[in-house]
Amino acid sequence: MMKLYYAAHTCALASHIALEDAGAEYSTVRIDFAAEEQRKPQYLAINPKGRVPALITERGILTETPAMLAFIAQSFPKAKLAPLDDPFAFAEVQAFNSYLCATLHVAHAHRMRGYRWADDPAAMEAMKRKVPDSVGACYELIESKMLRGPWVMGDSYTICDPYLFTVAQWMEGDSVDPARFPKVSDHRQRMSERAAVRKAIAEELG
Amino acid sequence: MMKLYYAAHTCALASHIALEDAGAEYSTVRIDFAAEEQRKPQYLAINPKGRVPALITERGILTETPAMLAFIAQSFPKAKLAPLDDPFAFAEVQAFNSYLCATLHVAHAHRMRGYRWADDPAAMEAMKRKVPDSVGACYELIESKMLRGPWVMGDSYTICDPYLFTVAQWMEGDSVDPARFPKVSDHRQRMSERAAVRKAIAEELG
Repeated sequence: MMKLYYAAHTCALASHIALEDAGAEYSTVRIDFAAEEQRKPQYLAINPKGRVPALITERGILTETPAMLAFIAQSFPKAKLAPLDDPFAFAEVQAFNSYLCATLHVAHAHRMRGYRWADDPAAMEAMKRKVPDSVGACYELIESKMLRGPWVMGDSYTICDPYLFTVAQWMEGDSVDPARFPKVSDHRQRMSERAAVRKAIAEELG
Repeated sequence: MMKLYYAAHTCALASHIALEDAGAEYSTVRIDFAAEEQRKPQYLAINPKGRVPALITERGILTETPAMLAFIAQSFPKAKLAPLDDPFAFAEVQAFNSYLCATLHVAHAHRMRGYRWADDPAAMEAMKRKVPDSVGACYELIESKMLRGPWVMGDSYTICDPYLFTVAQWMEGDSVDPARFPKVSDHRQRMSERAAVRKAIAEELG
């Protein structure tokens, strides 16, 4: 049985939803960021990066959301969470998720985690000020070029959908007005109505 | 036949090497960053992100190095560039490449591309000052926890190897002393002796 380490309001929600979508048997462990549990030796032994998510599998530990999502899709092929038999379509899924991970999530992280990239408090404030622009630019690209609709990859629901939904939860906090992005907002609404999403959120915030 | 859009000294080199490793038939197109070709309409029609690499395939255009590398590995299975029949081992490959993309490359980008995350010139200078630390911390993790040796994933060469080699080309520019990281340095040396690597570099810098 897999075990997911998560913290509330983080990108771990994407893998949590995907585990639900897959019909996986799994358990969860909440890491308390307020108590800095992610930097304590007990957790660093699981994930030396000191971040969530981490997924304990019977073969070992996985980190990095795009890799975990692909693993969940490949481990539960009957759930059809990715086009596993089509390398090009699978690469499109991976490319979308890589963009969320390396561009959108990174832009967002400059609001609260500027210390990763500068030591000067004034620089961290400058980073915070740019977040509405830099995150907003990501959603402009997603809205105009990437989200095919009704799901990210078109007619088929994939592992891109819980990931987009997860990062889109941060829009208001990043001062990005969802009303500017009708396709993203519609996607977020439809995702929020899915039983798997409701269950994962209820557990994380309960 | 595939076509790779690249710029010199960028992460596009990883896919270029992998195409050589795969024995693929491909052509390349150089994008001139000094002339800002990546922001001109002709290139934005190929990759609206305005970045390299981009890979033109017979099915469409792919971006994002981790996705492109996985696509190359899956498209040329005889080259055995990834453990395609083992979802866990494949996820480990994807996790490593995701870390390079979303953490190491992002840390490095704060030296020259701070304008992505702040508008204040003083903040960009503060970001530059942090790069030796933030990039160095990535190599500490890679050296101590991630690079199994002799190749990234152990005995088998995979798509992790050209990617690590590519980003490791930037160490000196980021004021990270390679001598601190003997396993990474040894890997870089052995990679640099491979014919595929020599050919790709000669073309990009020729």
